[in-house]
Amino acid sequence: MIEVYAKHDSHDTFYRTPFGAVKSGSTVTLRIKAGGIENAELALKFFDGSEQILSMTKAAGAEGHAFEGRVDIGDEYTGLINYYFILYAGQNVLYYGCQQDGMGGTGKLYDAVPPPYQITVYKGFTVPQWFKEGIVYQIFVDRFLNGNEDGKVSNPKQNSFIYGCWDDDPMYIRNKEDDIERWEFFGGNLKGVMAKLDYLKSLNVTAIYLNPIFEASSNHKYDTGDYKKIDPMYGDESLFKKLCIEAGKRGIKIILDGVFSHTGADSIYFNKFGRYDSIGAYQSKESPYYSWYRFTQYPYEYECWWNIKNLPNVNELAPSYQNFIIYDGDSVLKHWMNAGAYGWRLDVADELPDEFIEAFKAEMKQVNKDSVLIGEVWEDASNKVSYSRRRRYLFGNELDSVTNYPFRNAVIGFLRGDIDSTGFTRRMMSLYENYPRETFCAALNVLGTHDTERIFTVFEDKGENAYKYAKLAVVIQMTFPGVPLIYYGDEVGIKGGTDPDNRRTYPWGRENDDILAFYKRMSDLRNTDIFDKGDFKFHPSGRDVLCYERSYEGSKAFVFINRNVERAVSVDVPTQGVSIDINALDFKIFM
Amino acid sequence: MIEVYAKHDSHDTFYRTPFGAVKSGSTVTLRIKAGGIENAELALKFFDGSEQILSMTKAAGAEGHAFEGRVDIGDEYTGLINYYFILYAGQNVLYYGCQQDGMGGTGKLYDAVPPPYQITVYKGFTVPQWFKEGIVYQIFVDRFLNGNEDGKVSNPKQNSFIYGCWDDDPMYIRNKEDDIERWEFFGGNLKGVMAKLDYLKSLNVTAIYLNPIFEASSNHKYDTGDYKKIDPMYGDESLFKKLCIEAGKRGIKIILDGVFSHTGADSIYFNKFGRYDSIGAYQSKESPYYSWYRFTQYPYEYECWWNIKNLPNVNELAPSYQNFIIYDGDSVLKHWMNAGAYGWRLDVADELPDEFIEAFKAEMKQVNKDSVLIGEVWEDASNKVSYSRRRRYLFGNELDSVTNYPFRNAVIGFLRGDIDSTGFTRRMMSLYENYPRETFCAALNVLGTHDTERIFTVFEDKGENAYKYAKLAVVIQMTFPGVPLIYYGDEVGIKGGTDPDNRRTYPWGRENDDILAFYKRMSDLRNTDIFDKGDFKFHPSGRDVLCYERSYEGSKAFVFINRNVERAVSVDVPTQGVSIDINALDFKIFM
Repeated sequence: MIEVYAKHDSHDTFYRTPFGAVKSGSTVTLRIKAGGIENAELALKFFDGSEQILSMTKAAGAEGHAFEGRVDIGDEYTGLINYYFILYAGQNVLYYGCQQDGMGGTGKLYDAVPPPYQITVYKGFTVPQWFKEGIVYQIFVDRFLNGNEDGKVSNPKQNSFIYGCWDDDPMYIRNKEDDIERWEFFGGNLKGVMAKLDYLKSLNVTAIYLNPIFEASSNHKYDTGDYKKIDPMYGDESLFKKLCIEAGKRGIKIILDGVFSHTGADSIYFNKFGRYDSIGAYQSKESPYYSWYRFTQYPYEYECWWNIKNLPNVNELAPSYQNFIIYDGDSVLKHWMNAGAYGWRLDVADELPDEFIEAFKAEMKQVNKDSVLIGEVWEDASNKVSYSRRRRYLFGNELDSVTNYPFRNAVIGFLRGDIDSTGFTRRMMSLYENYPRETFCAALNVLGTHDTERIFTVFEDKGENAYKYAKLAVVIQMTFPGVPLIYYGDEVGIKGGTDPDNRRTYPWGRENDDILAFYKRMSDLRNTDIFDKGDFKFHPSGRDVLCYERSYEGSKAFVFINRNVERAVSVDVPTQGVSIDINALDFKIFM
Repeated sequence: MIEVYAKHDSHDTFYRTPFGAVKSGSTVTLRIKAGGIENAELALKFFDGSEQILSMTKAAGAEGHAFEGRVDIGDEYTGLINYYFILYAGQNVLYYGCQQDGMGGTGKLYDAVPPPYQITVYKGFTVPQWFKEGIVYQIFVDRFLNGNEDGKVSNPKQNSFIYGCWDDDPMYIRNKEDDIERWEFFGGNLKGVMAKLDYLKSLNVTAIYLNPIFEASSNHKYDTGDYKKIDPMYGDESLFKKLCIEAGKRGIKIILDGVFSHTGADSIYFNKFGRYDSIGAYQSKESPYYSWYRFTQYPYEYECWWNIKNLPNVNELAPSYQNFIIYDGDSVLKHWMNAGAYGWRLDVADELPDEFIEAFKAEMKQVNKDSVLIGEVWEDASNKVSYSRRRRYLFGNELDSVTNYPFRNAVIGFLRGDIDSTGFTRRMMSLYENYPRETFCAALNVLGTHDTERIFTVFEDKGENAYKYAKLAVVIQMTFPGVPLIYYGDEVGIKGGTDPDNRRTYPWGRENDDILAFYKRMSDLRNTDIFDKGDFKFHPSGRDVLCYERSYEGSKAFVFINRNVERAVSVDVPTQGVSIDINALDFKIFM
């Protein structure tokens, strides 16, 4: 047996340069150090499935036995390039690839074709600076504040329920088949949002992401009834315009939730229940909206989202649908941007065809190049496979930003002890490597949303330490690259399990002032150049201590998070020649 | 074989005199006509189960073969006396008794001991004249009218729901175990009742029976939480007092619903959920209310109404309970009568011990002898057996009135063709015979309540004739002896199936004006002496035509109801020597 060793570390610029995602037309130099082999080749796989084997040369000037290959990327190429190494040692062929988790960094030797490394290749694009430097505040409108002077709920829907008290626990009202029988509302509205703009400004919020606000039967409004009308319980178009203006005066932009993978069954377009004064697709094949839907047995059987009959899927590529949503002079996209919206969050981006997203982005930037497009994606969006297809989300013509649930998972995993600081680092380095830098800096770092447990509930089992854990999560969120998203009420310590419990009302008058003060302080910190746009680097600091550095124009800041619940940990501040103590379940920011 | 024939007809004063129920100390003469027998005896059974055989004599002056017996009733006796005849014919013993339905009138011969006839013996009592001459309007307060100027619902309960719209369909919100998960409210209140007093006066209403109004978790409030507090959604005590005064100014009295067989689990007294600032029976055996309840395994298992855990049964004979409800200086009974209530409807009277009802009645009349006590009884209340015991409801010391569901059943049965006019007559004659006259004239003649289908829904399957059928029911109700009860909204044609559909809201602004005008007209008619207090007699008039006579101080009125859907029927007006046509599905009142 010949002794073979090899090493490639995609995070180390000796082995791969430049680091991370690259623009089309770039050249990426890849190296592998290896002993006991005669020759090495580089195997590449392109986004269209084609493959290529490149020979490697002994690296010039490399210490030890290093082989080097150059990947010259075409000017028009976008997508992924996956690579691994083929090593020839006598009679044997060995492979070197990424570890099984696919997260880059140091890999290992395999006997057979290994998991490859990833190079993300994108067309150069920039995300508007205001977004990257901002803080987003997410509002589920029905639950935020009823801003009506008289406290009444505006325009309740037929056969619906209003919660008796603002602080009632949310619940679904289901029938025996477990379907929603009637919708329930608290009565929050856009006037309520408007009334709290100064409050949001005090939290350094620069954008409000509103869960859907167009007319719909439900309280969540992901079942759109009319794309061109604000739900009457929330307000109307003139109020929306006023909200955009008033928010704008305070440096706050409004981002809308665009739900384009399905409509409500109770909509102008489908009109299953005949409640709209239109000819819906369910009612007649002559309906102008008939081509939007996919009926399997007209009209009773049709494709729908997660088999929820109330949410018929649309065919996003139907020209009439694209015109209506994207292209028409008064398309949905243009209508609301002209009314003042500054961006869109695309609901269930995985369900939307690449072409739809690209078309939407292009048209959106035409209307306002300073606007942003965020995709709801739950995993690493650079290599997401949905419906057996690799998705194009981050290659320049698509999303500006994605929801960063991997960030949330890593934060919670580290603080709860499911992974250590190395695990956290590894997960985040993988995103750092795979995402175009613009996207990484624009990723929407969530600790909780309307689709997850709230962060304070995640740690509820920690008893009296619960708030300490949650605060550490907030520290990471506010000091990490990417855009922090505050889910309404998190800043005052609302608890809430899974849906619908995560949609409790904002507890006006019963806020946790300690948490709120902490959020304000952290958002002030966030609102400095070094955390808004500084460079970023991890430093290993022991299993229990997470350490990363931010740097900007010569200044440095080191963030330390000690998750150890029992004892303080003494750590060296990298490159500073000092060591400091971080208390149990505490943090330090060394600047 | 010897040919034997016999006849007794309890409705014919030749056979039984006086007719019907009699006062203690009366003598009732009973006769039987018989051929082929030598001797006859009268078998009596008393309320305590004792029996007596009286010999009969050949009737003096009787035509044919008549035997006569006299029942001398003791001055102190109250209750029932049941009787039948024993006939001796040669070697044979035969029996003559009531028909199997036990409804009096002509009986028949039997080989063995037959169903007996009934004589009701009561202690003389009078029901207040105002009640017998009145019209009662029943209000389920949550569904009648929200009288708040701002339209808001007053004091909604924690974790409850308010219907989005006043005209939403009522529904229960149940969990998977089919228990009520949260209560839902429309927000009607006492201010709403107050606002409509003039309207009720225009319908000749003289009493309002309110479904329970004391504090309780539910919308129906049969789960009392605090017997001494008006539910805060409905108002408060001072508002109640004002309501009584304002109603009184219009000649309208307020009757309360007394729910004394159980309390709510969520109450001062049981306090299962600890929501009250008291020590409830569920919380401690030291609770002042511990003796009120019957625990089988403390505290988790206890007797409750219809096994609904939210409605723990009380031990009505517990001295502390009786003091609280009846005897204390500020007992529940006295508290609300002093506040202006003019009577009580005892919920589920069948569940209340006789002694409790008697004590309640005695104390109530002490406070105001002009007040009334109504029992919720679903059958003939004179001989009701509940829990294997004959009940004492109508013997003078108990109820003034009972809910007359047998009336409702007979009206519906006749109009729908399940029974003919003879069947109707027979059922009502049975009540007429069995009830003390005061009770019969005070019986609460319902066409529908919160516990039944609404009258317009009963006939909904009759298509375009539905309203005609319902109107005929109203005619009978308004011209029959007894007190008509209008269930709120029936007068404007609300429909509603069984609970909760029978508790829809009053459709203010969407009334059926034709029905309303009809109700007003019929209530005006009702509001005349002859129908308020006239004597009463049935006249046979063919299967499809119901005919009865009312007479007062020499005036007569004949009511004809033709239920035949296809053709007019020509009938003779009894004793008047004229004949008139009654159109198909129509009525005539000949005065």
